[in-house]
Amino acid sequence: MSGFTHFDAEGKAVMVDVSDKAETERKATATGSIYMQPETLALILQGGVKKGDVLSVARLAGIMGAKRTPDLIPLCHPLALTSVKVELTADPARNAVDIEATCKLNGRTGVEMEALTAVSVAALTVYDMCKAVDRGMRIGDIRLIHKSGGKSGTYEAPGETG
Amino acid sequence: MSGFTHFDAEGKAVMVDVSDKAETERKATATGSIYMQPETLALILQGGVKKGDVLSVARLAGIMGAKRTPDLIPLCHPLALTSVKVELTADPARNAVDIEATCKLNGRTGVEMEALTAVSVAALTVYDMCKAVDRGMRIGDIRLIHKSGGKSGTYEAPGETG
Amino acid sequence: MSGFTHFDAEGKAVMVDVSDKAETERKATATGSIYMQPETLALILQGGVKKGDVLSVARLAGIMGAKRTPDLIPLCHPLALTSVKVELTADPARNAVDIEATCKLNGRTGVEMEALTAVSVAALTVYDMCKAVDRGMRIGDIRLIHKSGGKSGTYEAPGETG
Amino acid sequence: MSGFTHFDAEGKAVMVDVSDKAETERKATATGSIYMQPETLALILQGGVKKGDVLSVARLAGIMGAKRTPDLIPLCHPLALTSVKVELTADPARNAVDIEATCKLNGRTGVEMEALTAVSVAALTVYDMCKAVDRGMRIGDIRLIHKSGGKSGTYEAPGETG
Amino acid sequence: MSGFTHFDAEGKAVMVDVSDKAETERKATATGSIYMQPETLALILQGGVKKGDVLSVARLAGIMGAKRTPDLIPLCHPLALTSVKVELTADPARNAVDIEATCKLNGRTGVEMEALTAVSVAALTVYDMCKAVDRGMRIGDIRLIHKSGGKSGTYEAPGETG
Amino acid sequence: MSGFTHFDAEGKAVMVDVSDKAETERKATATGSIYMQPETLALILQGGVKKGDVLSVARLAGIMGAKRTPDLIPLCHPLALTSVKVELTADPARNAVDIEATCKLNGRTGVEMEALTAVSVAALTVYDMCKAVDRGMRIGDIRLIHKSGGKSGTYEAPGETG
Repeated sequence: MSGFTHFDAEGKAVMVDVSDKAETERKATATGSIYMQPETLALILQGGVKKGDVLSVARLAGIMGAKRTPDLIPLCHPLALTSVKVELTADPARNAVDIEATCKLNGRTGVEMEALTAVSVAALTVYDMCKAVDRGMRIGDIRLIHKSGGKSGTYEAPGETG
Repeated sequence: MSGFTHFDAEGKAVMVDVSDKAETERKATATGSIYMQPETLALILQGGVKKGDVLSVARLAGIMGAKRTPDLIPLCHPLALTSVKVELTADPARNAVDIEATCKLNGRTGVEMEALTAVSVAALTVYDMCKAVDRGMRIGDIRLIHKSGGKSGTYEAPGETG
Repeated sequence: MSGFTHFDAEGKAVMVDVSDKAETERKATATGSIYMQPETLALILQGGVKKGDVLSVARLAGIMGAKRTPDLIPLCHPLALTSVKVELTADPARNAVDIEATCKLNGRTGVEMEALTAVSVAALTVYDMCKAVDRGMRIGDIRLIHKSGGKSGTYEAPGETG
Repeated sequence: MSGFTHFDAEGKAVMVDVSDKAETERKATATGSIYMQPETLALILQGGVKKGDVLSVARLAGIMGAKRTPDLIPLCHPLALTSVKVELTADPARNAVDIEATCKLNGRTGVEMEALTAVSVAALTVYDMCKAVDRGMRIGDIRLIHKSGGKSGTYEAPGETG
Repeated sequence: MSGFTHFDAEGKAVMVDVSDKAETERKATATGSIYMQPETLALILQGGVKKGDVLSVARLAGIMGAKRTPDLIPLCHPLALTSVKVELTADPARNAVDIEATCKLNGRTGVEMEALTAVSVAALTVYDMCKAVDRGMRIGDIRLIHKSGGKSGTYEAPGETG
Repeated sequence: MSGFTHFDAEGKAVMVDVSDKAETERKATATGSIYMQPETLALILQGGVKKGDVLSVARLAGIMGAKRTPDLIPLCHPLALTSVKVELTADPARNAVDIEATCKLNGRTGVEMEALTAVSVAALTVYDMCKAVDRGMRIGDIRLIHKSGGKSGTYEAPGETG
């Protein structure tokens, strides 16, 4: 299965051996969105000045979710993340909440999965908190937009020049 | 914050009290997709006859992910799921892998979040296993398509009549 | 070691066998406090109108902590909690944040440990978030104030008549 | 929210970015106590020569609890602790069990929360094991008494000169 | 793959759907042994009167391990165990420590895996605690000796008539 | 309790302090087997060309299990493993599935327990997936066959010269 690093020569799933990789500063940023009814977004924004609002609960869940990545993704390495940052922004024009997560590590492997997991868990938490009023929400556009550090170098998603 | 069940009268986040709800058979189905380069999908399909292929690793990760839902989603109840089923299907016409997860419970609260979490974790696992060849994959269209059991009754996503 | 239920006749630690206990509605409330410098409490209160304030992060951590009780306390049973509620209140007169947690279960064993764990984790989280400005904070007065359900009946802490 | 490190400029909760901190030897010691009826303490001490006694179960729970800190405290970093030591000592004069925990790390962030969590989980475990005979126990005086390593230097709790 | 319940008609791994099974009292007992040098066993027995001895640490680890079964075994259901009991006995004649674990549940699926996991984790803990003096220990004879409850009825391992 | 490193001078269980150990490349390999009826092994082999077969599910569970070692074994350090590899091979001549796991770390402590845990969890998973057709399977011969790195140097199990 040439090209895939998570399989050995016989096609068996393996955790990639990173023992010989250098410890460098790794960074990854992922984004995603959750789309909803305008009324649902209005309710979220209405709560924005209160203590336990949807976006701050989801931000916290995203941060904690990043730490659970090796428990969730079978072939991910356990990592001592040095930074996790999660932002949620409401965009009323698109009836969406946009999520961006950035993770950092001084280590031997990248942190893309940690950033993507943070976005996913934050989006799921928004869904959970709003599902009583809107079961039709959709989570989408989850992708990596930036990655740096390590042998494979820097990656910028096409069109992410901002 | 009327309408939201995860906040009390003062706007503080709460786990909904389900003590007085009846134990009924709850079921939920969620779906989602991950979009990729045609070459990536071809590589996945090539591996399909081998032992450790991408889709079966992701299916397993999705099943295990459903069980971690209360650890990930702050206000979800811990549940004794009676069934988790995850399917992944390649759709070469759309350069996508489609994921469908169904969870069941005889209990006091719905299992939508468990089904949505299973789909998300399965999608993240596909990303993880293929990222060495395709960093531009996108996870999308994660949503609830069916829910039954409990006081709020049956929900079918619009357009899901099949 | 007569009197203790967590030891067998030979003094070996056991998880109490609750197979033959009836499923009843169990409820427990625990309280605790964290004491700090007046300036620290003022900073917490100042943040009270913002999105990610100390008390709401700690409330969420307490709710999630209750769910982790069987992972932390060796002889606790895994439980399907039906409700977890955590409140944090600042008391400037005592330079304290007071924490109260209530857990519920329809099950075979009490939920005192879940309530006490929620209080402890919420208090630790307040400490974590404020430790950069005040390392001398103290967590104290963690105790059970109410318990009901099950064969041992209702317990009210002395002096808790309000 | 100046002074707090766990909030960004907009008051949003963040995990502090420690990527640029130096790896140094970090050490922290925390203490706490659990107060009980004299009869309860007598029962604990009676069990002291047996295999599964209260204090050794609680010591083990404290050690394991320290390892769960990043799962419990939302904004704590996952750490590769190099040492965890937990001591429990009965003090019949005060009807108390005193707990002291010391954690060490060669890393980029302090281990105060790990030491405080170890003390808290050990105290909760004592409560759990004795609650059948004494529901009125109180956990208190949980605080940091020593911290060294890192840019903020050494901290000794006032009055801890021994 | 007829005969196996953990695969569907297409050979895909599934968590067995137990929604329609009756809630009955389930019980399972598993055993296993760890074999070592006579000197190692002598050291363990020497510690038997002390507080933190090998066998009681391993017993506790076994109890806690049983609770982690659904996190470890991919297709196991999350269960609310009502009882876990783990015994370790030294047998100097065979230079072995023998382990027996019994789990109980009022539920829809058996608890064999919980009992087998408890034995395995207890044995691994003995290995961990003694490995500095004896790296050649062997864990063996882990098997189910008794199972009752549920549609498949009672199972006794051949030769287990005691 | 001289000789044991997991006890202090008073016989209390401790996590060994590895703060002063050098970071070196650590490696450990463990093996084990699960013995079954010939018909059971035949069923496993029959599934070998399908997507979700027993051996690949067990391999994945073993890899994930290695990552959970510090959660399971009370006195194990949390580690950032750099490699986990698990192989399962059917041996029809012995009616056995043989399991071999190798773990690696650049760190301060050995990874024997991680390799042994991977083997144990993989074996338990084989049991779980086949138990509907064969309750009499036995897990055995779990042992360390190779260890290198660290002050104690290289260990080869006697007779492992291949």
